Amino acid sequence: MRHFTNVNDLGDLKVALHEAFEIKKDRFKFVELGRNKTLLMIFFNSSLRTRLSTQKAAMNLGMNVMVLDINQGAWKLETERGVIMDGDKSEHILEAIPVMGSYCDIIGVRSFARFESKQDDYNELILNQFIKYSGRPVFSMEAATRHPLQSFADLITIEEYKKTERPKVVLTWAPHPRPLPQAVPNSFAEWMNATDYEFVITHPKGYELAPEFVSNARVEYDQMKALEGADFVYAKSWAVYNDKNYGKVQNKDRAWTVDAEHMAVTNNAYFMHCLPVRRNMIVTDDVIEGPQSIVIPEAANREISAQVVLKRILEGIQ
Amino acid sequence: MRHFTNVNDLGDLKVALHEAFEIKKDRFKFVELGRNKTLLMIFFNSSLRTRLSTQKAAMNLGMNVMVLDINQGAWKLETERGVIMDGDKSEHILEAIPVMGSYCDIIGVRSFARFESKQDDYNELILNQFIKYSGRPVFSMEAATRHPLQSFADLITIEEYKKTERPKVVLTWAPHPRPLPQAVPNSFAEWMNATDYEFVITHPKGYELAPEFVSNARVEYDQMKALEGADFVYAKSWAVYNDKNYGKVQNKDRAWTVDAEHMAVTNNAYFMHCLPVRRNMIVTDDVIEGPQSIVIPEAANREISAQVVLKRILEGIQ
Amino acid sequence: MRHFTNVNDLGDLKVALHEAFEIKKDRFKFVELGRNKTLLMIFFNSSLRTRLSTQKAAMNLGMNVMVLDINQGAWKLETERGVIMDGDKSEHILEAIPVMGSYCDIIGVRSFARFESKQDDYNELILNQFIKYSGRPVFSMEAATRHPLQSFADLITIEEYKKTERPKVVLTWAPHPRPLPQAVPNSFAEWMNATDYEFVITHPKGYELAPEFVSNARVEYDQMKALEGADFVYAKSWAVYNDKNYGKVQNKDRAWTVDAEHMAVTNNAYFMHCLPVRRNMIVTDDVIEGPQSIVIPEAANREISAQVVLKRILEGIQ
Repeated sequence: MRHFTNVNDLGDLKVALHEAFEIKKDRFKFVELGRNKTLLMIFFNSSLRTRLSTQKAAMNLGMNVMVLDINQGAWKLETERGVIMDGDKSEHILEAIPVMGSYCDIIGVRSFARFESKQDDYNELILNQFIKYSGRPVFSMEAATRHPLQSFADLITIEEYKKTERPKVVLTWAPHPRPLPQAVPNSFAEWMNATDYEFVITHPKGYELAPEFVSNARVEYDQMKALEGADFVYAKSWAVYNDKNYGKVQNKDRAWTVDAEHMAVTNNAYFMHCLPVRRNMIVTDDVIEGPQSIVIPEAANREISAQVVLKRILEGIQ
Repeated sequence: MRHFTNVNDLGDLKVALHEAFEIKKDRFKFVELGRNKTLLMIFFNSSLRTRLSTQKAAMNLGMNVMVLDINQGAWKLETERGVIMDGDKSEHILEAIPVMGSYCDIIGVRSFARFESKQDDYNELILNQFIKYSGRPVFSMEAATRHPLQSFADLITIEEYKKTERPKVVLTWAPHPRPLPQAVPNSFAEWMNATDYEFVITHPKGYELAPEFVSNARVEYDQMKALEGADFVYAKSWAVYNDKNYGKVQNKDRAWTVDAEHMAVTNNAYFMHCLPVRRNMIVTDDVIEGPQSIVIPEAANREISAQVVLKRILEGIQ
Repeated sequence: MRHFTNVNDLGDLKVALHEAFEIKKDRFKFVELGRNKTLLMIFFNSSLRTRLSTQKAAMNLGMNVMVLDINQGAWKLETERGVIMDGDKSEHILEAIPVMGSYCDIIGVRSFARFESKQDDYNELILNQFIKYSGRPVFSMEAATRHPLQSFADLITIEEYKKTERPKVVLTWAPHPRPLPQAVPNSFAEWMNATDYEFVITHPKGYELAPEFVSNARVEYDQMKALEGADFVYAKSWAVYNDKNYGKVQNKDRAWTVDAEHMAVTNNAYFMHCLPVRRNMIVTDDVIEGPQSIVIPEAANREISAQVVLKRILEGIQ
C-alpha cells in the first residue's frame, strides 16, 4: 500500500481485519518492521485520540515519530504561482511539502473541512497536495471528507461485537451546537457500503450526505423506523451538505438525541460514537454509560487500525 | 506499586533510597524494563523541570513517551451527569479519561490547585478522576495538595549531603509576588515527618499549613529561632491555607527572605529550593550562589526520584 | 568537538565533508553511537526545517530527543544580579540553564537576533550563556549572528553539484517585506571564505555585512556584474547591519529579485536559498522551479550537516 485516504486503499477488508486481529493479539509482533523509519504527523487541526493512537501504533512498530502542530492559519502557505509574496504567507507549498517529505519516511496529515468552499473541501486540497508533492506515502488522520482510520476502527469493533453474520447497522444524525464536518459520517457510510451488512442512514430532511458516500445505503427520514431491529446504532452530528446551506446548522432538535426510548426499538443494539461526544445532545448519559455502549473499546481500536495502515505502508517501502 | 501520589505509596523509605542510589550509579541498568511500555504525561499546567526530568527518567528505563499539553481551560471537561452539553465543554470526563488510558501503560498527571474551591483542591478532584477512570497506574507530577516527586528528590538530596544521622531540617516560608499552591510545602512536610530528622516549620502567623501535613512537626513563628542550628534550610513561598483567606497573599515581608544573616545562625546549613526561585524575594543572590546552595543537584535528583517511581510501577505491571 | 557555533569548530572542512558523504550513504551506520544519550532542543524562535532535520539526525544516531519550545517573551529569564524578582521574570538564568543541562547530554539552542541591541545580538548573549552555564556541549540551531548547520548543509550541496574544482559562488541580497537577521548571510560568507571557491557578495549600498564576516570576499554593488559567470547563486534577504539603521529595511527594490535575466548572465548557475523563500520577492517562480534550482536537496542536506555535528559531539563525550 502506498497512500491511505479511503476504504479502497486497503483492498480486501477480510484480509485487513484478519491482520487487525493478529496485531491486537500481539501489538509488538512487528516491532522490527519500523526500525530506523520515521513517521511525521502533521496537524492542521487539534487532536487527542488520533494523535495518541497513531503515535502509539507507530511506536508499536518500532518507528521514530515527529509531531508538527500547525495552528490553523498560523502557517499560511501560498498555493498560486506568480504571486508576489509580500504579505502574510511566508512559504509556498511547492517548497514546504517536499522539504517535510525529505526528513521522514511516512507522512500523516490531519486537515479538516473549513466550510469556506465546498469545492475546496470536497477536492481535498491539502491532503492531495501532500500526496502530490511530498514524495512520501501519505495517510489521512482525518481529512476534509473522510476519516478512514476511524471508520476502520469502527469496522473492527463491529466485527468484534456482532452476533450475526450480517448485522443491521444504523447511522443516525444527532444535534450539536456547532457545525461539524461530514468526514466521519461520509467515511462510515463508505466503509459500511463496502461490507455486506444491512446499512441504514437516518437524518432530518436537508441533512442528506453527498450521493457518492450514500451510494447504495438505504436512507430513512423517520429515525424510529430506521432504528427498528438495529444491532448497532452509530450516532454522529454533521452540518448541512447541500449547496444552499453548506456547512451550516439548521436543526438542533433534541428529539434526535439517542435515548433509552430509541434504543428500546433496536435489537438490544450496541451504541457507537467516534468521540468526543456531547452528552444529552448526541446521546443520553444512560445510554452512553449503559452495558451496550462500546465507545471506549471503539476508541481503543484506533490504535489497531492505525497500526495495520502503518504496517502496510512500511511493507510497501521496504 | 500501583499509584504514586504521596509518601505512603513508596513504602519503606530506606529501601526506596537504596534503589535511588543504585539507579544514580547506573541510570541505564533497567533500560530493558520499560521496553514496549508507554508513558503518557498529561499537563494541565506548564512545566520545565518535571517535564524534562520525568521524560528523561522514562527514557532511561527504555520507555516510549507521549506528552499531552492541556492548556488550562482550553480543554473543558464536563464532570456532572444530566447536563445538556451544548456549551463550551466538548467532552465528558467519563469518556476522555478511559480513552487516554487505552493508549498507554502508565499516566503522569500535573494539575495544580486552582484556588477556586478549597474543597475541590484538597479532594484532588482531577488526579483522583484519573485514578478512578483511566484503568492505568497514575502518578502525580504535582497535584493540588502534594508534589511527591519533588519531595522524594529532596529526601535523596538531604541523604546525600547530610553530615549527621538526624539532621535538623527547617522549612521556611518566604515572600513572593503571586499566590502559590501549598503542594510543595505540604508534601515536603509529609516526607520529612516520615523520617527521623528533626523537622521545624516556620512562617508568619496566618500561613499555617493544613494540620494533616504539619502533623508532628514543630511550628515556630520566630524565623531566626527556627533556623538556629539548622543543617538544611528549605525555603518556599505559599499562599494562605485558612478558610478566610484561602489562596491569597497576605504578607510580602522581605524580612523573611533568606539572606546571609539568616544563614549565619544555622549550622553552616545547606540551602534548598524546588525552583524556579525568585531571587531577593525567596533568597538573596549571595546565598543561592554560595557554596552551601544545593539547588542544582536537588533539581538533578528529580530524574532519579521519577525513575524510582516509574521503575516500581513498571515492576507492578509486568 | 565540544561546542558547535561556527565554521572553526569543525576543523578541516575536507574531513568534515568526507564524513558527511559517508553518513549520507548510510544514515544508520552510527545508530549505536547515541544509545542512551539525550539531545535537548531549545527553541526561543519557531522552526520547521531545523526542528525536523535535527531531530531526524539525532534519531539516526540512536539518540533520545526532548524538545522545549520557549515562546519569545513567554519565559522571561532574569540575567542581572541584585534584582528583586517581584515582576514578570520568574526564574534566573543561573538556575534555569544548569538545570536544563542536568537532564540531557547535548543541548541545541535556537535564538535569533532581536534587533533591540546590536551589541547584545553580536555578543550572542543567549547562546553564550548556555555554553557558560549548562555544563553540556552546546550547538547552534541558528543564533543571532550565525546559522552554521545551514551553512554546512550549503557547503555539502555545493560540493555535490559543483562541476569545477573552484566554482564561483555569489551571495546576493534580495528584497523582503520584513527585516531579517544577518545570521544566514554572515554564516554563509564565513563558510565560503573558509573554502578556496571564488566568492562574491552583492547587495545595495547600505546593506554591508559586518567586516569580520565579509573578510576577504569580493563585494560588488552591481548585481549583474557580480553574477556574471557564477556557478552558484545564493539569494538571501537581510536587514541593515550598520549602526544607523541596524535591523531596518531600507530597500524593497524588486530589481534585485533573482529572475531569468539575472540567471542568464551566469554560467548556467545553480540557484540556492535556505528557505522559507518569498517567491517573486527573492526569486521568481520560473527560477526556483527550474532545473537549476537545488533548494530542496539543499534543505535535505540539513539532516546530514546536523548528523555530522551530533556525531562529532557524541564522540567527544564518549
